[in-house]
Amino acid sequence: MEEMTNTFSGNLLVAQSGGPTPVINASLAGVISAALQFEDDIGEIYGAVNGVEGILNENFIDLAAESQQTVRLLNTTPGAALGSCRYKLRKEEDFARILEVFKAHNIRYFHYIGGNDSQDSSKKIADYCAAQGYEIRVIGVPKTIDNDLPVTDHCPGYGSTIKYIATTVRELTFDSASLGRHNLVTIVEVMGRGAGWIAAGSVLAKRKGVETDAPHIVLLPEVAFNAEAFAERVREVLSAQTHCVVVAAEGLKDAEGNYLGVGGAGVDAFGHPTLGGVCEYLKNVVEGAFDGVKTRCCRLGHVQRTASHCGSLTDINEAFEAGAAAVKAAVAGESGKMIVIVRDERDYYSVRMELSELDGIANCEKVVPASWIGEDGMSVGTQFSKYALPLILGEPKLVYENGLPKYAELARHFIEKKCEPYNL
Amino acid sequence: MEEMTNTFSGNLLVAQSGGPTPVINASLAGVISAALQFEDDIGEIYGAVNGVEGILNENFIDLAAESQQTVRLLNTTPGAALGSCRYKLRKEEDFARILEVFKAHNIRYFHYIGGNDSQDSSKKIADYCAAQGYEIRVIGVPKTIDNDLPVTDHCPGYGSTIKYIATTVRELTFDSASLGRHNLVTIVEVMGRGAGWIAAGSVLAKRKGVETDAPHIVLLPEVAFNAEAFAERVREVLSAQTHCVVVAAEGLKDAEGNYLGVGGAGVDAFGHPTLGGVCEYLKNVVEGAFDGVKTRCCRLGHVQRTASHCGSLTDINEAFEAGAAAVKAAVAGESGKMIVIVRDERDYYSVRMELSELDGIANCEKVVPASWIGEDGMSVGTQFSKYALPLILGEPKLVYENGLPKYAELARHFIEKKCEPYNL
Repeated sequence: MEEMTNTFSGNLLVAQSGGPTPVINASLAGVISAALQFEDDIGEIYGAVNGVEGILNENFIDLAAESQQTVRLLNTTPGAALGSCRYKLRKEEDFARILEVFKAHNIRYFHYIGGNDSQDSSKKIADYCAAQGYEIRVIGVPKTIDNDLPVTDHCPGYGSTIKYIATTVRELTFDSASLGRHNLVTIVEVMGRGAGWIAAGSVLAKRKGVETDAPHIVLLPEVAFNAEAFAERVREVLSAQTHCVVVAAEGLKDAEGNYLGVGGAGVDAFGHPTLGGVCEYLKNVVEGAFDGVKTRCCRLGHVQRTASHCGSLTDINEAFEAGAAAVKAAVAGESGKMIVIVRDERDYYSVRMELSELDGIANCEKVVPASWIGEDGMSVGTQFSKYALPLILGEPKLVYENGLPKYAELARHFIEKKCEPYNL
Repeated sequence: MEEMTNTFSGNLLVAQSGGPTPVINASLAGVISAALQFEDDIGEIYGAVNGVEGILNENFIDLAAESQQTVRLLNTTPGAALGSCRYKLRKEEDFARILEVFKAHNIRYFHYIGGNDSQDSSKKIADYCAAQGYEIRVIGVPKTIDNDLPVTDHCPGYGSTIKYIATTVRELTFDSASLGRHNLVTIVEVMGRGAGWIAAGSVLAKRKGVETDAPHIVLLPEVAFNAEAFAERVREVLSAQTHCVVVAAEGLKDAEGNYLGVGGAGVDAFGHPTLGGVCEYLKNVVEGAFDGVKTRCCRLGHVQRTASHCGSLTDINEAFEAGAAAVKAAVAGESGKMIVIVRDERDYYSVRMELSELDGIANCEKVVPASWIGEDGMSVGTQFSKYALPLILGEPKLVYENGLPKYAELARHFIEKKCEPYNL
């Protein structure tokens, strides 16, 4: 029986990073729930508060001490329950500090729930620890509403976001179609810098077989914006029906690659431009091209990544499974990899959690395939709908209190610090 | 037994007008359901397509022919199922035409579901018919997300809208509080021209007893905007916590009564200014007053009046009851009045439907009482919460199909026209 003796064990640390999604906490719940099942391998289950900043500052909380009620409620809670961060690990000292803290708390499992940038950090931490001879198992858990990570079929967070967007577009359509006003153009600006997955997801608002249903025009960053072709398409729609609904990604660019409608916009901590203003840009195009047209703008902003009240049960379950799968893989001896969702080739929707090297994932961006985009460059076809529809199916049972969804808050039992303070 | 013989009977016409609410169709369902119960008094149940335009154009559909499934689904369907309109009855000919059409179809009951302007039209139609000796019973059904009608305790549509707004603000708060970023200001612009009921409703997002909860600042049109006091309040909030959530009504005005942030805005068919841009205005104030502050804007736009997926069951039930009560009152012989909701003075929430003269309602605007607004002019107190909380309680059972709410569409069996065409 000696072969069965586990020689590797230690404490687990989980953290969250980047922009939260409606299901980033479902992945946290998955990590906690799975970790509790491996008591021979995993001792304490810690959470770092505010991502890598929480590691550098040694701000750890005891997740096993949280109530079961709270952990269950994490499945439908928006925001990042552990706190997020956008700190970029840059200097050698940061990595040495992380190793110091890991050693002090005997952290042997590390799971970072985040997007491209977070997986990049995961990889660097794994590499550094390996180079320093510290054995640790690092398995990343993907999250991003943008759905732009390569390798994985789709990302946890995406399904819930497009369920909310499609619901909203359908509701706006019932409103605008009912007004009895002609030449009404509704423009909905959604997130999506380099990839138009979210904008594309709005087509799920169309009812099966109802060709006239909104959205009538979908503008993706993958296609250079052409004002004349856009105005012409609006004209076509308005000649056939009273109203036109346009869904536009915030990251629209012209033929020269310049972002549309960037006013006083800056860049974020990673050098990505922070956008906004596409709605007003398109409004001006429409009003410049037509007389007597009425346009209205909706800029959902960050609401689209927080709308847990409209989450997809499929997405929640997969986010949970991705977290659990990361722990299982680490216990099985894997490291330096990320969980990816692989879709089985079957008649019905079925996925499994697999592992991918972090190398191929960090800092790459997956865009909507050109063959899925309509020839007019302003629509997506049935291949997309076939891909996206299963991701929005099912509704979670929400807990309501005083008329509003009740969301989880961690009790946050802090762990005693063992290292000297660190200057970030 | 001769006294029991009903000497008044005829057909019923119902129409919808103005901006739709999440529950304007629940009132329609209430009208239809109640009308079916009075077969001695009411013959046909017709709907006018697109409000008074549908009457002038004699576009009537047979509502009794709709399926029971469809009528039930109306309770949770956004938009105006009959079609809305903003046509203003101006000329004598319009009224003569309406009477001609009413006579041709033996319309003896008329119910207009709408806000101030619609009730004004109702009253004029009732007066005209009376002056011409045509007996008809006109009972209006109120609707407006703005909650600005006098006499009635509150308006159907308001509860669902603030349930959605409060849910959204709570979700945005979980997001922004979790980012670990300091000096983050989130500005949510909501509807409300002259009255701040919707902005005020966002305070329901605060959890009981959690003083630090968002929204931290609520800006109402009832209070003249003061940029310095606003910036100072933002500073106070940001000195105590990492983020500040501001909810602002689109109708904010400065001390001189000028709307803030009116760019290229125009006026609507009734001469009301169409607003927008308060969000960006406030963003500039905040960024001008602080260094290193990050602001983000959400302009929900028309989403806030269409979000039936987040409706209040209390609101839906009351909207239905208001429609049913209008029919019952008309059958009982009432006319020239509107249904109002009266709140009983009890320890628990309880309301009854009563009648009010249309005179006192049309073209008046009820604002948030000054005594309910905090001394700082940027908050609302417990009196408001006590008033508003019961209105958002309960969640309807939604029908989902392919991952999205299924909404009702009327089959629209059109009635044969009996009059000559009319030039609008």
